[in-house]
Amino acid sequence: MVDSVKYTLGEERIPKHWYNLMADLPSLPPPVLHPGTLKPVGPDDLAPLFPMSLIRQEVSTEREVEIPEPVREVYKQWRVTPLYRARRLERALQTPARIYYKYEGVSPAGSHKPNTAVAQAFYNKEAGVKKITTETGAGQWGSSLAFAGAVFGIDVQVFMVRVSYNQKPYRRALMETYGAKCIASPSMETNYGRSVLEKSPDSNGSLGIAISEAVEIAAGHDDTKYALGSVLNHVLLHQTVIGQEAIEQLAIANDYPDVIVGCTGGGSNFAGIVFPFLGAQLRGGRKVRIVAVEPSACPSLTRGRYAYDFGDTGHMTPLTKMHTLGSTFIPPGFHAGGLRYHGMAPLVSHIKQLGLIEARAYHQTQCFEAGVFFARHEGIVPAPEANHAVKGAIDEAVRCREEGKSRAILFNLCGHGHFDMQAYMDYFGGRLTDQEYDERELAMALSGLPAVPEPA
Amino acid sequence: MVDSVKYTLGEERIPKHWYNLMADLPSLPPPVLHPGTLKPVGPDDLAPLFPMSLIRQEVSTEREVEIPEPVREVYKQWRVTPLYRARRLERALQTPARIYYKYEGVSPAGSHKPNTAVAQAFYNKEAGVKKITTETGAGQWGSSLAFAGAVFGIDVQVFMVRVSYNQKPYRRALMETYGAKCIASPSMETNYGRSVLEKSPDSNGSLGIAISEAVEIAAGHDDTKYALGSVLNHVLLHQTVIGQEAIEQLAIANDYPDVIVGCTGGGSNFAGIVFPFLGAQLRGGRKVRIVAVEPSACPSLTRGRYAYDFGDTGHMTPLTKMHTLGSTFIPPGFHAGGLRYHGMAPLVSHIKQLGLIEARAYHQTQCFEAGVFFARHEGIVPAPEANHAVKGAIDEAVRCREEGKSRAILFNLCGHGHFDMQAYMDYFGGRLTDQEYDERELAMALSGLPAVPEPA
Repeated sequence: MVDSVKYTLGEERIPKHWYNLMADLPSLPPPVLHPGTLKPVGPDDLAPLFPMSLIRQEVSTEREVEIPEPVREVYKQWRVTPLYRARRLERALQTPARIYYKYEGVSPAGSHKPNTAVAQAFYNKEAGVKKITTETGAGQWGSSLAFAGAVFGIDVQVFMVRVSYNQKPYRRALMETYGAKCIASPSMETNYGRSVLEKSPDSNGSLGIAISEAVEIAAGHDDTKYALGSVLNHVLLHQTVIGQEAIEQLAIANDYPDVIVGCTGGGSNFAGIVFPFLGAQLRGGRKVRIVAVEPSACPSLTRGRYAYDFGDTGHMTPLTKMHTLGSTFIPPGFHAGGLRYHGMAPLVSHIKQLGLIEARAYHQTQCFEAGVFFARHEGIVPAPEANHAVKGAIDEAVRCREEGKSRAILFNLCGHGHFDMQAYMDYFGGRLTDQEYDERELAMALSGLPAVPEPA
Repeated sequence: MVDSVKYTLGEERIPKHWYNLMADLPSLPPPVLHPGTLKPVGPDDLAPLFPMSLIRQEVSTEREVEIPEPVREVYKQWRVTPLYRARRLERALQTPARIYYKYEGVSPAGSHKPNTAVAQAFYNKEAGVKKITTETGAGQWGSSLAFAGAVFGIDVQVFMVRVSYNQKPYRRALMETYGAKCIASPSMETNYGRSVLEKSPDSNGSLGIAISEAVEIAAGHDDTKYALGSVLNHVLLHQTVIGQEAIEQLAIANDYPDVIVGCTGGGSNFAGIVFPFLGAQLRGGRKVRIVAVEPSACPSLTRGRYAYDFGDTGHMTPLTKMHTLGSTFIPPGFHAGGLRYHGMAPLVSHIKQLGLIEARAYHQTQCFEAGVFFARHEGIVPAPEANHAVKGAIDEAVRCREEGKSRAILFNLCGHGHFDMQAYMDYFGGRLTDQEYDERELAMALSGLPAVPEPA
């Protein structure tokens, strides 16, 4: 039997720069607007929240942004991450497809999130910042920033969506093990949190609320900044180490993807694997089909509107043009907490508008079915978020079988499911349901989008 | 700042053979005895439980045992495992010591256990076995064998100590994700389980009871064999890939350990890192201090008797000479479930008798304190078992600081703690206690040791 194959690279092959898709796009995404003036924001507008080095990256159009040596040093703990050829899975599917996956679960926090957490903590440390605030849903991002804060000696305060805070005590314990402070949101620590609790004392919270709380604290303290785990350009930029490494590893395998599949919540792991391939295509290289997979219960790319919207519920953030379900949209409860966000990264939204990528939505039970099938053959238990990518890749492989075509399929296995075993237990116990979102609620959330006149 | 350093090797450097310490010992350990005749057991006595290839490994005195190519192919998924120089930890401890750790948590099941699980599943498959039974305490071993069974297409039935079965549903979910059947022990599936439940319907179970159940099923079915996750010679043999790799990786670092620290439950991760270094020493190489660390609440090496004893509570196994607390000894509840076994591997016991290793016992709270300190500096959250090794290594490093000596300390970080976060929560919440075992109970358990006449 020919077993699954791992493609590794020495740490000297960790990329020396992040890749910036902005340099190769046929058009730039629409500008970020100040919510008061509706004018494009300048660096000074963002300075209360981010160090200037990150603001520069946010608006940079340079193709290559150098990775600081101290960040590469920390990356070396787990990078280059393995790329696998999933031979056992291929055999089980009886597919002529060649299935490859990049595995980001080998990081200390168990997902791709430390790629940007480490970079953000470094730049904040360099700028003399003492404390970083952030939000987290399922906890992947919060634990990653907690790890990065421990490495660089910065305090980390995480506002964790209350329903997750209660349901996922072990993610919280992980953050505390790294020394971070984790608070259930909405909380009494902020004006916005108190205002939410006044109206809804039993509020379950949401990512949008938690962002408002974290932003409020950062904006109000000179030595404190804010960090976001997805959506923003500089966050997506930091994730491009994934795709750059994959290109090199596939070259060793003497192969190149016909299709790339990634799951999308805010868009960062998807961008991480996709952008370097897409950039090569835009510079005249080989064309790749790109498929974004999202949950049916929170389908910003497939059902959202491409419009200017706030990133948070308290409307403290600038306005970005993106695929959005409306900042007041609350998706039904499902297990892929990292995909429960109302908006999509502006850059990912932009390339969707340009027709450079496809999008597809799946229900959670079919994703768990795919994840369990994957685990039984490849040995790795994926995070619920990653199960969406697994499902997308398996569907592509089945199509190859039906069409008798041997295509190369690449997907990003962005994290492991060790902290999500309750979801697997619910799946095995038949307790997972495929709850639909409420169409009227979506309509209402969309009707509340801020009015932004089209540019002349 | 000089960051922590990872030493990697290409998969072509995965060892081609396991190292057998028996070949280099000044004397062989005492023979395994048949419990009825008190005569040394022969291969036929063990044939109902193990395939002949593993029985041959159990008694082999060849220095090198070839690793079958299909086993190496599966090893490639996560091996060569990284060796780290813990520079951040060294700095935090302000020690002149050079601290290295080998990290086995990168395996699919999160510990060193798949090293032998994959080998055992392979040999059973080769022998036409359809089903393997086993026991598990905390679940590290059960989930590893479940993974290996999935890879080779063998059914796996795991008897899980009832108290763990109830307390650690996520480890159980992991086994089920891999397709294994997991049963709380004592169970109604076996005569022995039923007899225990008749006397104690609320029995919490123990590893000794679970072994009896698994052995009973295997002995009663032709197509079913039994697998043990530690203690036996062939299990320790399979773990020696750890130490062999570490020797090569330290050579890249241009270093060699003055001290090696490992935690000991049944003895397999300890043997895995230690035996290749000890063998080199016995063949005239450099002398290394070797420290076995065990829990104060289950201290077989430091407080047990070196005597013949059963491996299980139901007295179905052969008798082996080992450091034992008595097969009826039930340790108080503590979190390092993998270290809650009454006996110690005969080979580890033998080298302790020969004065080749030291042993030391720690309480669990001091081990968790060390583990949290380690996580905040090195980024990896250790399993509660591994925290014992971390504590031992930190104590050695502190001694180096006090003595002003720069020694090289190597320890085995045998697994991550992702499935043990409840233990960390208990630690943070001040709910961990350092319960002592009951001296009278130990005396009683030891007084029940089987009477075996000394050889003439």
